[in-house]
Amino acid sequence: MIYIRNAAQVVTMAGPNDKPRTGAGMSELGLIENGGIVLEGETIAFVGPDEEARRYVEASGREYEVIDASGKLVAPGLVDPHTHVVFAGSREKELNMRLQGATYMEIMNAGGGIHSSTARTREASEEQLVIETRKRLDRFLEHGVTTIEAKSGYGLRLEDELKQLRVARRLNEEHPVDLVSTFMGAHAVPKEYKADPDAYVKLVTDVMIPAVAAEGLAEYCDVFCEEGVFTPEQSRVVLEAGKRWGLKPKIHADEIEPYAGGELAAEIGAVSAEHLLRVSDEGIRAMAEKGVIAVLLPGTAFFLMTKPAEARKMIEAGVPVALSTDRNPGSCPTESLPFVMNLACLTMKMTPAEVLTACTINAAHAIGRAGRIGSLEAGKQADVVVFDAPNYLYLQYHYGVNLVETVVKKGKTVVADGRRTDR
Amino acid sequence: MIYIRNAAQVVTMAGPNDKPRTGAGMSELGLIENGGIVLEGETIAFVGPDEEARRYVEASGREYEVIDASGKLVAPGLVDPHTHVVFAGSREKELNMRLQGATYMEIMNAGGGIHSSTARTREASEEQLVIETRKRLDRFLEHGVTTIEAKSGYGLRLEDELKQLRVARRLNEEHPVDLVSTFMGAHAVPKEYKADPDAYVKLVTDVMIPAVAAEGLAEYCDVFCEEGVFTPEQSRVVLEAGKRWGLKPKIHADEIEPYAGGELAAEIGAVSAEHLLRVSDEGIRAMAEKGVIAVLLPGTAFFLMTKPAEARKMIEAGVPVALSTDRNPGSCPTESLPFVMNLACLTMKMTPAEVLTACTINAAHAIGRAGRIGSLEAGKQADVVVFDAPNYLYLQYHYGVNLVETVVKKGKTVVADGRRTDR
Ligand SMILES: [Zn+2]
Ligand SMILES: [Zn+2]
Repeated sequence: MIYIRNAAQVVTMAGPNDKPRTGAGMSELGLIENGGIVLEGETIAFVGPDEEARRYVEASGREYEVIDASGKLVAPGLVDPHTHVVFAGSREKELNMRLQGATYMEIMNAGGGIHSSTARTREASEEQLVIETRKRLDRFLEHGVTTIEAKSGYGLRLEDELKQLRVARRLNEEHPVDLVSTFMGAHAVPKEYKADPDAYVKLVTDVMIPAVAAEGLAEYCDVFCEEGVFTPEQSRVVLEAGKRWGLKPKIHADEIEPYAGGELAAEIGAVSAEHLLRVSDEGIRAMAEKGVIAVLLPGTAFFLMTKPAEARKMIEAGVPVALSTDRNPGSCPTESLPFVMNLACLTMKMTPAEVLTACTINAAHAIGRAGRIGSLEAGKQADVVVFDAPNYLYLQYHYGVNLVETVVKKGKTVVADGRRTDR
Repeated sequence: MIYIRNAAQVVTMAGPNDKPRTGAGMSELGLIENGGIVLEGETIAFVGPDEEARRYVEASGREYEVIDASGKLVAPGLVDPHTHVVFAGSREKELNMRLQGATYMEIMNAGGGIHSSTARTREASEEQLVIETRKRLDRFLEHGVTTIEAKSGYGLRLEDELKQLRVARRLNEEHPVDLVSTFMGAHAVPKEYKADPDAYVKLVTDVMIPAVAAEGLAEYCDVFCEEGVFTPEQSRVVLEAGKRWGLKPKIHADEIEPYAGGELAAEIGAVSAEHLLRVSDEGIRAMAEKGVIAVLLPGTAFFLMTKPAEARKMIEAGVPVALSTDRNPGSCPTESLPFVMNLACLTMKMTPAEVLTACTINAAHAIGRAGRIGSLEAGKQADVVVFDAPNYLYLQYHYGVNLVETVVKKGKTVVADGRRTDR
């Protein structure tokens, strides 16, 4: 039972939760000045003007833990709809290679990149993966992120794909951050299948997907549709197989080369398409028409020193946009979704209002959780962040530092003064 | 008395301290694997292999506070040689204006920008400025920054310039972060002198500089040499006046338009020239010849959404390069010097080694402190940072989050687990 009192500003994101926000709807934050929020158990009981919240609390006659948000900004717990957070090791040496001119695909084709993380992840025990991933989840939480999606795809063989997904399931139970799992066996063609990628696709569709589904280890299925990785036809085969087993499709599309990934996402009924740095205008039109969410990852473009996606074009075309860290060991090693918002403003010209929508309710839609999280509304899950900021514009202004002060997850304070409290 | 034991890697930056590092010298970090450091009082007593450090500690027979740096990176306290940290208020609304197309100079000429911070700073009491600035210094410290330069320049009239400098002097005494003061009355022409900028220059040279010098309030004098602000000729007059009163010259040069600022810096014997986004090749040659330090501010370019300085060209020409946040309320509202290092790599292609040199020993040179700080060597001041990173490359890899774990300032632990301990 928590009463968050007297916030300078509350970003509620209140509104219809049946579909993701688009166009001008992405700028409607449902702001309340001098707001108050009452949390009961794991649920939000009241959001509104602080006077009314105080009356609610007094009338209840119950004891509340009071969090004073005077001068502060309160927002829904942030949602990160695209991570590869379960892996072993780190790849800091590749940055030096890239600064000297090597491309990400060159490093990968030389056995670095995804292949090096695959080797480390295959070697790691489940326990080791839990330890490494838990530290990353702590950082997510300290940056205000209360729910993330987590993909497999560094196992690339049955037992290790299952291992990654089991780690995600276990951490979903043990750690305050909620994890929504995606099977991404088709993240790369493993070295041992280099000569026969179709045989690997068959392994994914005929062995891995049924096994994942049988154990209930994932809700989504994703594929890296990219020149030199999986073709659009192979990608379609993977996602159709996933659908048959109840896994909803997502797709890494048009990241490095234009490959008609946006079009495929629309055609196949994908929930979301990811990256989209090189998506075609036709792909954007098709996605808007079908309501495919564009999950944009400006941190990856930044770290790979390449031009980010054309967010403005997508928003203006009516595509619902979400943002994510893409947390992974190669192309985006950060847990700071707030910093990704800064990048979205400064490198993609999204507005401070749009980026908040993209990291709350639209991100929740991208992982099928918009009915429960992504906005501060009575009846929703009590995931709340208090920022050391007087208003929402300030989040995109005082950049590069962590403004998160308090995080409440399912009604429990898990971060105070910017640090995990319950470790 | 502190013993920092068993660091995975120690960046000592040891080497000749008589002049800033240039060219390939910027890549020599003086690395020690499995290092140990012994601090006695405010001074470094020993730096070397941990075995030897342990023997030193045991032989001394004294009691030491032990900081276990197993698996961690240890580096000199970071030095930020260019900030405008003493001011009142914040300017988050300008970002929205800029996202809609307004330029920084347009906002300034419309009475926003520096003028709005000047109005707020003039209104603020010394006490108010101390409170606001102290919070910024806490953030600097939490990001591993133990010494900063601090400029005046939001007073723009005698009493308020002195007020800013007195705040810096007071915080230098009260706060663990050391502040080195620069008088920058010539930061902008205040509105009341719009019609007669030369009269304002005269006020700066004939009234402000003597008053600052008389009170011993600054070591450096700086000027914003820029089209529409102060001309090269006015800048020269200001800096020459400063020199006569014992203030060493610095210059904001070639930030927005090429204006022969690099050339002027070399000619006048400036310690450093700042920004340099549009410096000419001739300016670079002149700076290299005279050893003028280029203080580059990629955070400002990032936040203003413009192309950063050509760091590689300068390093290859033999100009010593330092980096800084430029912490100020308009064009760079961040205290994260580590993030500025990330930007220097990713947007200016500086290497992970060069950016460390630029934020330690070269930055110390830019504020005349290289004999005391900027490297870990016996006899130097005990300013040390422990990063949650296994090696120095990792600092530029796991970006966007604060990896600082422990900060020791003058032999005293002032940050532990990433948070101020002595507040
Ligand atoms: Zn991805
Ligand atoms: Zn400046």
